Amino acid sequence: MFSAKFEELVQSLRLLPGVGPKSAQRMALHLLTRNRSGGRQLAHALDDAMLSIHQCSQCRSLSESEVCTLCLSTHREPGLLCVVESASDVVAIESSGGYRGRYFVLGGHLSPLDGIGPDALGIPLLLSRLQHEAIDEVILATNATMEGQATAHYLGEAIRQLPRDIRLSRIAQGVPQGGELEYINGHTISQALQSRQPLQ
Amino acid sequence: MFSAKFEELVQSLRLLPGVGPKSAQRMALHLLTRNRSGGRQLAHALDDAMLSIHQCSQCRSLSESEVCTLCLSTHREPGLLCVVESASDVVAIESSGGYRGRYFVLGGHLSPLDGIGPDALGIPLLLSRLQHEAIDEVILATNATMEGQATAHYLGEAIRQLPRDIRLSRIAQGVPQGGELEYINGHTISQALQSRQPLQ
Repeated sequence: MFSAKFEELVQSLRLLPGVGPKSAQRMALHLLTRNRSGGRQLAHALDDAMLSIHQCSQCRSLSESEVCTLCLSTHREPGLLCVVESASDVVAIESSGGYRGRYFVLGGHLSPLDGIGPDALGIPLLLSRLQHEAIDEVILATNATMEGQATAHYLGEAIRQLPRDIRLSRIAQGVPQGGELEYINGHTISQALQSRQPLQ
Repeated sequence: MFSAKFEELVQSLRLLPGVGPKSAQRMALHLLTRNRSGGRQLAHALDDAMLSIHQCSQCRSLSESEVCTLCLSTHREPGLLCVVESASDVVAIESSGGYRGRYFVLGGHLSPLDGIGPDALGIPLLLSRLQHEAIDEVILATNATMEGQATAHYLGEAIRQLPRDIRLSRIAQGVPQGGELEYINGHTISQALQSRQPLQ
């Protein structure tokens, strides 16, 4: 509309998740007419983050240093490891406040058709850590999707074959907090009935 | 959460209109884990746009060159000028496809309490263009808000005092296309009744 560089900015803003053509245009106009210094600040923060944030060499989560703050922290239970699919799952679990162990981030789930096998998910690194570190329990917290379940199943088998005795668990599946049975799908209800807990 | 630069990126993404803390975090994680080259492309496009897109010296819209493509175009009616509040109004009118003249962008509305007077809106430039160019009609297309109305009123008075004979009009106000009377506010209905048009 206004110039080639304007169009380029609108197209680039559409790379952000959840941003369509209308919002991208609104964002570009907002920055250009009302907050140019903000636009430059965002450009700088993006460049900086893309260049200096990498995978933690221990847990494959995001980190500026070679090993991330969660792995280095002395306040986390060293014997407990939670395996998740992505760094956003770490954020979700951390903000729940219900976990004090460490993490391992696969960076996806097994998907042989897309060529994503154990190596791409860092599973050899995970198994080697389990052999050499004093980890007593592994919580498999991959998503409750078909692919997440298959990945958890694969990991369970692989970890059971290790020469160490490690407790294995899978996050519980059932009716979510606040869920009303009439609006919940049949699979979830069957699962919640099967995994019923003794009343205390 | 992951690092200082991650937090900085999340905070900077919140400068975009309509982006709250949750979306900003989702955007940052998406770029870092799935599209780093996209993140760098966006950084570059932002920097480039903020540095090379300026106000057109004739119409105060956005432009990479000193005079924008709309002002330079030989396909626009030279005698017709539409005065709008912002560059996004130019986008809105252009995408309606119903206008073939040129524009003048005020960059806001008169707001004496905020120190925004005629000079800040480029009104002297507008009046000088009207005196020196062969412009026959000015359409006042400021918003149908209190401030937009007041600005249109002020512009009308100022343009009428020019020594040239210029037709002045204001965009029509009434019931929007698809509007159902029962859901439309009283002010709009009174306005639509007062401005009724002879049936053709």
